[in-house]
Amino acid sequence: MTFRPTITPTSRPLTFEVEAIDEQGTARTTAIAGEHPLTLYVDKREIVTLMTMGQAPEALAIGYLRNQRLVRSIDDIAAVQVDWETDAVVVTTRKAIKGLGNKMKKRTVTTGCGQGTMFGNLMDEIDSIELRDDVRLPEDALFSLLDALRHHETIYKSAGAVHGCALAAYGAAGAEILAFVEDVGRHNAVDAIAGQMWLDRIDGSDKIFYTTGRLTSEMVIKAAQMQIPFLVSRSGLTQMGYEIARKTGITMIGRAVNKHYLLFTGKHRFEKQLTPTLLA
Amino acid sequence: MTFRPTITPTSRPLTFEVEAIDEQGTARTTAIAGEHPLTLYVDKREIVTLMTMGQAPEALAIGYLRNQRLVRSIDDIAAVQVDWETDAVVVTTRKAIKGLGNKMKKRTVTTGCGQGTMFGNLMDEIDSIELRDDVRLPEDALFSLLDALRHHETIYKSAGAVHGCALAAYGAAGAEILAFVEDVGRHNAVDAIAGQMWLDRIDGSDKIFYTTGRLTSEMVIKAAQMQIPFLVSRSGLTQMGYEIARKTGITMIGRAVNKHYLLFTGKHRFEKQLTPTLLA
Repeated sequence: MTFRPTITPTSRPLTFEVEAIDEQGTARTTAIAGEHPLTLYVDKREIVTLMTMGQAPEALAIGYLRNQRLVRSIDDIAAVQVDWETDAVVVTTRKAIKGLGNKMKKRTVTTGCGQGTMFGNLMDEIDSIELRDDVRLPEDALFSLLDALRHHETIYKSAGAVHGCALAAYGAAGAEILAFVEDVGRHNAVDAIAGQMWLDRIDGSDKIFYTTGRLTSEMVIKAAQMQIPFLVSRSGLTQMGYEIARKTGITMIGRAVNKHYLLFTGKHRFEKQLTPTLLA
Repeated sequence: MTFRPTITPTSRPLTFEVEAIDEQGTARTTAIAGEHPLTLYVDKREIVTLMTMGQAPEALAIGYLRNQRLVRSIDDIAAVQVDWETDAVVVTTRKAIKGLGNKMKKRTVTTGCGQGTMFGNLMDEIDSIELRDDVRLPEDALFSLLDALRHHETIYKSAGAVHGCALAAYGAAGAEILAFVEDVGRHNAVDAIAGQMWLDRIDGSDKIFYTTGRLTSEMVIKAAQMQIPFLVSRSGLTQMGYEIARKTGITMIGRAVNKHYLLFTGKHRFEKQLTPTLLA
């Protein structure tokens, strides 16, 4: 089925210019990242207010509902409408979500930059996650991805203060960035990727998920929930991120910059090249 | 009044060692930051589960309640007990909090690393915040603080993946770090500082608040709520962080590293030295 919900693609200005005085006493015009409240309503019920740069609000809303396990399939979503006049994103479902009130009751405030809230018992789901074991990530593909990301145009380069996430595929020609989202909170960025994957019907089971942010528990859970076997970060990790990575068997790589990386878990899916290849 | 609630000072191991394979194929023992769930109960009511490194759980619990405006004074707290067996921190108040249920209803998921959730209408309070206007921060005091922070022993240096916050005073001898907390989420770190300030009865109105994290809306609101006139960050800022800083008139300095900084708002409180002094 190739149904796609009605969406109103809209974005906000992503950066703004303000004036600052530097240590030389010189006035400098500086770009800063936008940050806007966006209140999510599902079938007229207020769910949450997200603080977002607003690059991909529809994908963010959909991905938020996906990653919070509030909506089980993109097919359950009939429409997504963003209205920046009222700072609202209104999601209409095809059939009412069962037990929405109950799911929203329990909240865990997490270490993630960004949304930092998980409804329900996401942690309980870890045990049921099974990631594909017949896929391999060659070291060259990792280097190719890091290279592609380095050349990607980013808000971070102009304004800083944002986190980026990317979904990538890889093949003989190296890595290809399928989606790239930045946001003032990194969990918004990962959720927007999750929403984009649903909208574009992208199967995560052989993909690479890249984040500039730290590999905390929430980040690892979300990647695993999206069935993505490869999780790569420029940053480090926390103990629970590590424990969950080990439990799910995800191939987790931290401190990935240029030709450096640390392979933490899921080592069987990673193929180290011992000799230079064409891609190197 | 110098009442101090009964607390059970307790901390968790802050770092753990795991093994990773680097790009040379060499196994490397790597320190990673701890991350533990800590469920906060107030008068037997479950409030939230925080994911924390666990450095200062009592101060974190108190500061969380303070910054969420759920408790109005340290004198309202009778006891704080942490039990890592059950991952719980139990706060007992002297008199029941009025309208706790209502306050918890509305939630804003923010851009902050860390807790990222604000109850109630914190944003509405901005207009009522008045910061002291008779205090000045000499540039030398800023440089002295950055220097002190550079020499501070940190989890960040050994394990990365954490954010740090500091509360500092300054005088003729330069800046003095009064409190320094790191956590896997930077909002835990700022909340723990807020809790420590209440416990030690520290008045924020002439202090400097330093964070390694970005100056998002939530960070600026929290600093202003603590009556702190000087907010300094190693990182950048977002548009709403800037807007709120302007509204509250807080003296906000970003990109503060070594002898560099950008002064964004509240410039009247900052004193640039035009000639080198003894402190420089």
